[in-house]
Amino acid sequence: MKQIFYILLILAFSALTAFAQRPPSISSPEVAPDHSITFRYYAPKAQKVMVSGEFLAAPMLMTKDTSGIWSVTVPSVKPDIYPYSFWVDSVQIADPNNTYIFANERFKRSIVEVHGDQPLIHSLQNVPHGKINYRYYQSSTLGTTRTLLVYTPPNFDANGKTKYPVLYLIHGGSDTEETWTKVGRANLIADNLIAQKKATPMIIVMPYANVAPSPRELFTKDMMNDIIPFVESNYPVLTDSKSRAIAGFSVGGGQTLNIGLTNPDKFAYVCSYAPFTATDEFKKNFGNWSPNAALMNKQLKLFTISIATEDFLYESVKQNIAMFKEKQLNLETLVVSGGHTWMNCKLYLANTLQQIFK
Amino acid sequence: MKQIFYILLILAFSALTAFAQRPPSISSPEVAPDHSITFRYYAPKAQKVMVSGEFLAAPMLMTKDTSGIWSVTVPSVKPDIYPYSFWVDSVQIADPNNTYIFANERFKRSIVEVHGDQPLIHSLQNVPHGKINYRYYQSSTLGTTRTLLVYTPPNFDANGKTKYPVLYLIHGGSDTEETWTKVGRANLIADNLIAQKKATPMIIVMPYANVAPSPRELFTKDMMNDIIPFVESNYPVLTDSKSRAIAGFSVGGGQTLNIGLTNPDKFAYVCSYAPFTATDEFKKNFGNWSPNAALMNKQLKLFTISIATEDFLYESVKQNIAMFKEKQLNLETLVVSGGHTWMNCKLYLANTLQQIFK
Repeated sequence: MKQIFYILLILAFSALTAFAQRPPSISSPEVAPDHSITFRYYAPKAQKVMVSGEFLAAPMLMTKDTSGIWSVTVPSVKPDIYPYSFWVDSVQIADPNNTYIFANERFKRSIVEVHGDQPLIHSLQNVPHGKINYRYYQSSTLGTTRTLLVYTPPNFDANGKTKYPVLYLIHGGSDTEETWTKVGRANLIADNLIAQKKATPMIIVMPYANVAPSPRELFTKDMMNDIIPFVESNYPVLTDSKSRAIAGFSVGGGQTLNIGLTNPDKFAYVCSYAPFTATDEFKKNFGNWSPNAALMNKQLKLFTISIATEDFLYESVKQNIAMFKEKQLNLETLVVSGGHTWMNCKLYLANTLQQIFK
Repeated sequence: MKQIFYILLILAFSALTAFAQRPPSISSPEVAPDHSITFRYYAPKAQKVMVSGEFLAAPMLMTKDTSGIWSVTVPSVKPDIYPYSFWVDSVQIADPNNTYIFANERFKRSIVEVHGDQPLIHSLQNVPHGKINYRYYQSSTLGTTRTLLVYTPPNFDANGKTKYPVLYLIHGGSDTEETWTKVGRANLIADNLIAQKKATPMIIVMPYANVAPSPRELFTKDMMNDIIPFVESNYPVLTDSKSRAIAGFSVGGGQTLNIGLTNPDKFAYVCSYAPFTATDEFKKNFGNWSPNAALMNKQLKLFTISIATEDFLYESVKQNIAMFKEKQLNLETLVVSGGHTWMNCKLYLANTLQQIFK
């Protein structure tokens, strides 16, 4: 009798699988030891399927086999974590066979990790690990409950005997509060650099920075009036400006400049990655700006802008850099190769973590 | 000059948008005040697009407008959180315009929240909130670093003066360690019940329970030898059996029975939701089982199985219930309407949280 029920159960599960029309054998992505990657996608009725990814200059056509599975193998790529997606008859989708989704509100992409022969700075290694806390806070600025992520370092001492410096780390335009950890691996980069004694144990706060449809500058208010007070009343943190840093990528890199440079008495470290600055807020803050450079250069222990030469914002960022230098601010720049990518974000962050709170 | 750069920037962003071929006006899902839901999907070349969701008995056809956008409005549904997906020419995908993805390794679905006129037990309310910690632990059983989530209650006292009971909460077969929070809202259900003083402040541990390709019973070892010791050495927890509960859904409901009932000296609360028990491990444990029922009934303060009448496992679970009752175990059952769904999971969990650690 029990036998029959087991058979019925297996049939029921099989029926569910059949309903999903997913061939059981499909595996995608498959990274080979030579770092080539095979992508597969099941779509018997599609007319054209391509894979596009940040390891490719242009999308690659996939070919369909007789069972309706499209596939292509991308030759050996440099070890890193890459976003990619499929274009199915001109519609972009994430890889349905890959659990790792790029955390983003707009583009649905998957991520693929290509391991190196040696661990990379973002690799999961057998070192002490910090925690990521998912938190809610009440934003008086936006009149709602919002989410943020808080990384606390290995051996975090929550009872207040040790007090920690804080890095506020902001995602890009359509990203979410999870993008810096799920794609940027901020927690693992910090774990690894702390284990190597190249970074000071710190708290990293990753807010959700999109305030649309509210005006963009409300995020600056939210940061100053809600996020920082929430962190400082809930975590054992140092509250002098030399123990507070701000960094961010793309739209978040612009927010970093807007928040950090208008509050140099609050942030001694301002680190902007490939900033997007074509905003009213930036124009208002820096359009007719006459900073007291001597004072600011004393207040800012570090002011950096990082950019890649093929970043679509490269020319604009060069203009920003020239403007800040023209105002006599001490500005460090990091110029690398590559584009407006999260591969570069990890590099920028790893650099920042070794520079701040020293 | 600056003007020109702003224009170039806007053009660059527009070019990116054009590349993504995503009409800017699309919004999906859109929940109306009457609780009807409109779904939209852009696919000018698709031949047939349907929406399927746990608010529907069968997939609904969507219709295409002249701009290539498919849409359909589903009439008023009961307030809850529902998984859904699109079937595009027989291929199942998540809604590319919805940020909220169902955390699962196999099925790519989106989730839509339909708010009630009154807050539901899983609704984000203005009450004190616990934290979700994302942690790594070293599994000696599996020889690798694995992830787990730990909910700590509001006003959690990490320095050890207060010690907390612990619920170990296991996801379903193809789910991930995030499914109980992202879909099941375990953290918000706990926040709300603790605020209403209907639940005791507790720690909830949500491991990643899939050990494939290792044999399934290795998870039992991982739980006993790695997860529980990790939790007990990293959190201020009570370690007597009356302060330890285990619960899980579907495959995780089967794991709950396997782990809990073979260790009644460790878990005084065993709460299984729609268990999948067609496994070698279950057969081995309970196939020729002669428990000391009198002893177990003393050890177990609560042993429950919850199931829904249209759950595809209903008949099998009825058999399980009969078997456990036949062995003279005190077993409480909760039978509700509906299917093998996460809507019911939330209900089962809300029930458990009010029963344990009292």
